[in-house]
Amino acid sequence: MSDVDIKALVFDVFGTVVDWRTSIAQEASILLGKKGFDLDWLKFAELWRAKYQPAMEQVRTGKRGYVRLDILHMENLMEVLEKFSVGGLSSAELENLNKAWHRLQPWPDSVSGLKRLKNKFIIGTMSNGNVALMVNMAKHSDLPWDVILGAEPAQAYKPDPKTYLTGVEWLGLKPDEVLMCAAHNNDLLAAKAQGLKTAFIARPTEYGEYQSLDIKAEHKFDYISTDMNDLAGQLGC
Amino acid sequence: MSDVDIKALVFDVFGTVVDWRTSIAQEASILLGKKGFDLDWLKFAELWRAKYQPAMEQVRTGKRGYVRLDILHMENLMEVLEKFSVGGLSSAELENLNKAWHRLQPWPDSVSGLKRLKNKFIIGTMSNGNVALMVNMAKHSDLPWDVILGAEPAQAYKPDPKTYLTGVEWLGLKPDEVLMCAAHNNDLLAAKAQGLKTAFIARPTEYGEYQSLDIKAEHKFDYISTDMNDLAGQLGC
Repeated sequence: MSDVDIKALVFDVFGTVVDWRTSIAQEASILLGKKGFDLDWLKFAELWRAKYQPAMEQVRTGKRGYVRLDILHMENLMEVLEKFSVGGLSSAELENLNKAWHRLQPWPDSVSGLKRLKNKFIIGTMSNGNVALMVNMAKHSDLPWDVILGAEPAQAYKPDPKTYLTGVEWLGLKPDEVLMCAAHNNDLLAAKAQGLKTAFIARPTEYGEYQSLDIKAEHKFDYISTDMNDLAGQLGC
Repeated sequence: MSDVDIKALVFDVFGTVVDWRTSIAQEASILLGKKGFDLDWLKFAELWRAKYQPAMEQVRTGKRGYVRLDILHMENLMEVLEKFSVGGLSSAELENLNKAWHRLQPWPDSVSGLKRLKNKFIIGTMSNGNVALMVNMAKHSDLPWDVILGAEPAQAYKPDPKTYLTGVEWLGLKPDEVLMCAAHNNDLLAAKAQGLKTAFIARPTEYGEYQSLDIKAEHKFDYISTDMNDLAGQLGC
């Protein structure tokens, strides 16, 4: 398809731009390892992440008003620590561990690909992470965003249409001038339903070698790419 | 003072980072000059800008809900064009002229100073300009913002406290960890009243050679600087 009308690219971040699974496992192993704990760190990361969707669902369904992801992450962390029988952490240690989400490592192609894309397009986040989380991660991992959009600006969690549409509106664009980029089929379907263009970026090891979902694009998207540099190439960057 | 606790710098943009007066005059002279108009272009820019505060005051006082600055700028433009007896513009020409605010030129020290500051701090906008305006200006003029804050995120116009405080909250910081940087005494006083730290950046020719206000810092601010690089130096960047 032609890319002449695309003005901005917005990105899912957890999984699409950064590798939360090994980043969280590594951070947890360092921070909890110092305290003498020896866990299955990848499992720890996966269980923490497993509580992410159910926590946001409380907000999506209106059972709870919007609360930023940092707070949901902390609530989920307390549950995961209990499950792993980890106790005795100070509030500063808990806070630091929770902020591991602010220090996630990019996939190897993310920074170079985003820098190429930024030369031609506005690039922004369209993540469920809150603004501070996104900004701190960008500073930590050299992610060159032009703008932070997503859950906190919209006070809603993807795939709530409000999330995508607030971002589009704040950019002063029409939905079909914005390309939603994600490694998750459902995220793209939800964006597509609101009129955004869509790009699948394959991250088939996001959940490790036994990943069963989102191995590949399962629907008709405008672009289907193997990584961020492949997408940059397809978009003429 | 010590800068050890400052985590983020937020900036007024019109006047502090960019020179709206000569930028607007130049854009208007090109766009309206092509149509055969010959006006006092600096006067045109000044009169357009003169309608800025009264337009926002309607929102601040609650007479009108939040509307983004692009819309206020367009309403004000129509009045200024009428005053200068300029007619016959197409809607595309009006839109392009209104978007001159998205293409303002930085002061000569702004880009180099901001890049130095960005190495050590989060840097963001705290402007009454809307998000699209700020993002497009950043792309046009190489302004390296980490985050766009200010009026549209807060749905309020400075000096409404909500504007500053929403930005601080979204950064996940305390007010005194955020340094408000501006060329306008009143903007800094309002930020200071909300607990932010303050830096005056002198722009004594913002309104031309006969400027009467904001020639210098008139209150006790944490930093008083002659330009963006002076501020960077004072902050150890």
